[in-house]
Amino acid sequence: MEFLSEIDRLKRVDRQSLITGRVRRENSAEHSWHLAMFAMILGREADGIDPWHVVRMLLVHDIVEIDVGDTPPHAPGHDPATIGERELAAARRIFGLLPGAQGQEILALWQEFEAGQSADARFAKALDRLQPLLLNTLTDGGTWKENGVSEEQVVSRYGPTIAAGSPALWEHARQLVSRHFAAQGEATLAEPRAL
Amino acid sequence: MEFLSEIDRLKRVDRQSLITGRVRRENSAEHSWHLAMFAMILGREADGIDPWHVVRMLLVHDIVEIDVGDTPPHAPGHDPATIGERELAAARRIFGLLPGAQGQEILALWQEFEAGQSADARFAKALDRLQPLLLNTLTDGGTWKENGVSEEQVVSRYGPTIAAGSPALWEHARQLVSRHFAAQGEATLAEPRAL
Repeated sequence: MEFLSEIDRLKRVDRQSLITGRVRRENSAEHSWHLAMFAMILGREADGIDPWHVVRMLLVHDIVEIDVGDTPPHAPGHDPATIGERELAAARRIFGLLPGAQGQEILALWQEFEAGQSADARFAKALDRLQPLLLNTLTDGGTWKENGVSEEQVVSRYGPTIAAGSPALWEHARQLVSRHFAAQGEATLAEPRAL
Repeated sequence: MEFLSEIDRLKRVDRQSLITGRVRRENSAEHSWHLAMFAMILGREADGIDPWHVVRMLLVHDIVEIDVGDTPPHAPGHDPATIGERELAAARRIFGLLPGAQGQEILALWQEFEAGQSADARFAKALDRLQPLLLNTLTDGGTWKENGVSEEQVVSRYGPTIAAGSPALWEHARQLVSRHFAAQGEATLAEPRAL
């Protein structure tokens, strides 16, 4: 119960993504729910994937952010040299609130996700990239527009991780990205230009 | 993908409960994540419970609120005669966005939760009562204090559902409630009184 009380704090960790309606940024708890739904729905159709294992990984994958915060890989403060250590310390502290065997199991799930080697972990990581991609297409460009990210940058930043987890999902996501940028281009052309 | 886009709206459905830190009310998406964690952690220890089935039920149990909103059973606008029909229409619309077989499966999961007859559904409903109980004890009384709810009312409103899902969980929750109201009583006595 101490663990279940502590993780309530994930609701106060904000991410970069806007939620639909563009009313505010997404927090890591609701992001984890959305990802679990992605895994439940899309994992059922994927060969060689255990949806329950993927759901469990995704439910716990961001809990370390309670101590470390959300640090997007392209943000200025992102330091890959130290973030791994800080996240591991957070995982040990928070999962250590659980009784021994269960704490070890959750730590192993989180480590499997971080390592990204197993088919289930690669699929989980693909969904963790697909979900913000979908949100950006649903929020008029969202963080892409805020940061002036081009279609080519989207493809290079999202493509490898999504394709490694599921080539079929990347094929679909690539179409969403093309349609999004094509529509943005048309909207820009349609704007009245100053002389 | 249409379904996964539509359910993003659950992040904009607010509940009554305060989150820890008392900074704002909880939304139904992050509530669903928190409940899935309850099921993953507590379902493992419960006899005759399939944690994956319970997690799936809890991930989808509130999605109908996208159309219907969150209507607590003790709120003034709660009309049990019509709410069932409105929720069923919402379930058909939203789960109907999924391909046939999968939409039917999720509809069946949601109906199993609503019926509350199977051991897994009773356990899921117990967690859905336990989680706001825990939040209220962690937020200085939360909605209980706002609404002047007494210890006896808490016991009668939460006890039957939690005990029906798991007598052991209710035993633990009953102690949390006793400790909470005892501490509230002491805090009241310690306040300086006007003459």
